[in-house]
Amino acid sequence: MGRKSSTFLSPIFALDPASAEPLYHQLYEGIRDAILDGRIARGTQLPSSRLLAAELSVSRNTVVNAYAQLLAEGYLEGEAGSGTYVTLRLPDDSLRAVRGTSTTPPGAPTRPRLSRQGQALQRYATTHTLSRNEPRPFQPGVPAVDEFPFRLWERMVARQWRKHPWQLLTYGPAEGAQPLRQAIAEYLRMARAVRCDWRQVILVSGSQQAIDLTARVLLDPGDAVWMEEPGYRGARDALVAAGLALAPVPVDAEGISVRAGRATAPGARLAYVTPSHQFPSGVTMSVTRRMELLCWAAETGAWILEDDYDSEFRYVSRPLSALQGLDESGQVIYAGTFSKVLFPSMRLGYLVAPPPLVDVFTAARSIADRHSPMVDQAVLAEFMREGHFGRHIRRMRTLYQERRDTIVEALTRELDGLLELSPAAAGMHLVGWLPGTVDDVEASRLAANAGVIAQPISAYCLAEPARRGLMLGYAGYSSAALKLAAGQLAQALAGLRAKRPTTR
Amino acid sequence: MGRKSSTFLSPIFALDPASAEPLYHQLYEGIRDAILDGRIARGTQLPSSRLLAAELSVSRNTVVNAYAQLLAEGYLEGEAGSGTYVTLRLPDDSLRAVRGTSTTPPGAPTRPRLSRQGQALQRYATTHTLSRNEPRPFQPGVPAVDEFPFRLWERMVARQWRKHPWQLLTYGPAEGAQPLRQAIAEYLRMARAVRCDWRQVILVSGSQQAIDLTARVLLDPGDAVWMEEPGYRGARDALVAAGLALAPVPVDAEGISVRAGRATAPGARLAYVTPSHQFPSGVTMSVTRRMELLCWAAETGAWILEDDYDSEFRYVSRPLSALQGLDESGQVIYAGTFSKVLFPSMRLGYLVAPPPLVDVFTAARSIADRHSPMVDQAVLAEFMREGHFGRHIRRMRTLYQERRDTIVEALTRELDGLLELSPAAAGMHLVGWLPGTVDDVEASRLAANAGVIAQPISAYCLAEPARRGLMLGYAGYSSAALKLAAGQLAQALAGLRAKRPTTR
Repeated sequence: MGRKSSTFLSPIFALDPASAEPLYHQLYEGIRDAILDGRIARGTQLPSSRLLAAELSVSRNTVVNAYAQLLAEGYLEGEAGSGTYVTLRLPDDSLRAVRGTSTTPPGAPTRPRLSRQGQALQRYATTHTLSRNEPRPFQPGVPAVDEFPFRLWERMVARQWRKHPWQLLTYGPAEGAQPLRQAIAEYLRMARAVRCDWRQVILVSGSQQAIDLTARVLLDPGDAVWMEEPGYRGARDALVAAGLALAPVPVDAEGISVRAGRATAPGARLAYVTPSHQFPSGVTMSVTRRMELLCWAAETGAWILEDDYDSEFRYVSRPLSALQGLDESGQVIYAGTFSKVLFPSMRLGYLVAPPPLVDVFTAARSIADRHSPMVDQAVLAEFMREGHFGRHIRRMRTLYQERRDTIVEALTRELDGLLELSPAAAGMHLVGWLPGTVDDVEASRLAANAGVIAQPISAYCLAEPARRGLMLGYAGYSSAALKLAAGQLAQALAGLRAKRPTTR
Repeated sequence: MGRKSSTFLSPIFALDPASAEPLYHQLYEGIRDAILDGRIARGTQLPSSRLLAAELSVSRNTVVNAYAQLLAEGYLEGEAGSGTYVTLRLPDDSLRAVRGTSTTPPGAPTRPRLSRQGQALQRYATTHTLSRNEPRPFQPGVPAVDEFPFRLWERMVARQWRKHPWQLLTYGPAEGAQPLRQAIAEYLRMARAVRCDWRQVILVSGSQQAIDLTARVLLDPGDAVWMEEPGYRGARDALVAAGLALAPVPVDAEGISVRAGRATAPGARLAYVTPSHQFPSGVTMSVTRRMELLCWAAETGAWILEDDYDSEFRYVSRPLSALQGLDESGQVIYAGTFSKVLFPSMRLGYLVAPPPLVDVFTAARSIADRHSPMVDQAVLAEFMREGHFGRHIRRMRTLYQERRDTIVEALTRELDGLLELSPAAAGMHLVGWLPGTVDDVEASRLAANAGVIAQPISAYCLAEPARRGLMLGYAGYSSAALKLAAGQLAQALAGLRAKRPTTR
């Protein structure tokens, strides 16, 4: 037997002692593959471990370990002393189907079969390209992360780690840790006039998850949704993937046009809005519109998702009150994020749900991904409680206001007559509107060629854009970088200025 | 005018100088609410800031700030010098609908209208209770978090914070940071015989998110799914919420019965399986079953979701190879988590997708919640690269094996004849099977009364359970605690033993 088995086993194994892979594992894989390929027939008795070890010039332990693994996984059968056999129980057709090396298994699709949502996402995947490079002007959505108080944060993280109570390490509550929810509720009541008890605050991993959970919990595929036009792409992508029918509702100087929404999609189940600082146009929703919107929601039982993504940064008056604070009928889901105020990679945000929805949102969070990291929650709660959060917001507000002044001044000087700047009373970006004759995609391309990121407004539109322009983020960049980029943008767009008709 | 306005404004405001809420904000809210209530009529001219400040005995700045806010939000109109008026533009019906204090707005639902998924989740929310107490025997799913190398981890976190490059702070890639994906791929190839390139590894926030993303990308509501019976509730809840038709497929001593699955739901689009260590029964899927399952998937084009949640801890032979490593037709999605190996509250896991699905899974992660925290990813990549990860697994494997020996010995001594212990070759829990006549829900209740957590197996079943028993987690508890709990459990179940018939 020894001789017979060694003659067929020897050519099968090319063990490589120099490999990082342990010898026993190389041997295990070699035998397994030979069994699956049919090179070692079912029922074959394998050589004893002593004999095979000698044959292969490896330690006997190596062979014993390989055999043990193969026995545990069911490729081999037998007991020590009575011999080891390749199992007879491997079905023939399994072998063929599974190891049918070159041919596609019968019935297996050549292109993978996806769900409807998967198909929507696949279309999205092909167009969605996130920049992997260091942020540079005027990429929007980037706060001044280099101004974040790292040292302090690091010390606070270390403090939590030294305490390391079990609460921070085992599974935590889906809705978030109570101290953080309390700190957020207090902040929202004071700074944003949100009317809420801390029990209504549900922690999420950013406003993207708030949008996704809202779609899950409140909307069925095919439901109509009012989407601000132009509007936030993160929301649009999530809502489209959820199979919803997006109705683009134009935004004018007062915010979303409730009249237009009522006309085009009166039966919509949700309106997605950014009332404090419309994304991307920068418009603040007037109180009249807020009333009209709440009125529509109360009348029809529709939901309003208020995405308050950067309202902390308002330069002209105090931050505006949230729409949620005016809602008497419990139709508003309020969402906010720490991505802009602290730093985006932390992945913490929150939603405030009307009381009857708290349990169902909590359950949705639980099945989606359980909960957010507990150490981060503990550190952030302390950061808020000790007043660092408020101080950091105030510092950033001053800094961003300076940067806004710089970019407005530079763009006005360099691009007056070509770009008409949107109101810049708030936020971290502004829009440079282009004359009607200029294509913003072309302008964006010219800017990119000159090394300047200036996304076209038309990319934020579902329909033909009413007005074209460029998104210009400024919060994350130094005054020097902003001035330089404004000059580069002016040079890049010089040709467009020449093309522009002399009369309107 | 001054006199007239002061007469109506005075009784409206009860400013509280002792409140934490700034005076200007109290004033702002008071005026706003009075406008919305109709106590201050539209078109009314407000007193000058100087006059109102004197009237209320507050600084003029307080009034100026409150007016500025009300002007910014559109409740007031006017310019300095020409007077400040309550806007005429608030629609009458808005006021009524929004501030219709006591009556429900017309058409508004008394119970909130949810999506089908929301309704499923609401049913789930009422039954789902996560323990908020410190884990105690025999709550399953809890690793020995007190054995985690905190000091080391804390130092590594601090090191990352001191570097704080922009990559760690701004938005990151949805699929995860490359160094971590590479470390995971290498680990999976070596330790789990997963066949993958690092580009197939997609970071998720735990196996729960892997399950959720798989359902989104691959399955439509109404699709049938093979669910192991008994099986993992986290998977069941996510799949039910997604509107899928769950077919319970019995698990026997070789794992899921492919024959039974083919008989009951031949057209299923997915099989959810835990081949290394079936949850909860502890069975390892035989290689024959693995082949049969892969064969069925290849034949029908169905997907297999392999949840390899605790395969690191195997005490008898080496950890078993993953089912994924045998898949030739790209039908297996492999999911793993760091929750069991490191600590659950970190919320990091991964899935390995067949190459054609990588883009769509990445897009799904992006719209669900963008990505995982970047600092944690950087620390974990270093933790793996520097060998700490492997060392920690080996230490925990030894520790858990000791604890397993302790619990097996204690349960055998205390409960022999009542509990038949499942194979305990792997994992962090075992099952104590009860005689056919004993109700496991009743046994669980008796245990809970004695302060011992022993979940009934029937809670993990969709249909009538074939066999009843108790889930007994041991990994997270000291030997002393396990012995004590085993004694308490024996006392609690003493009555059941008496009731048990003497013959089978």
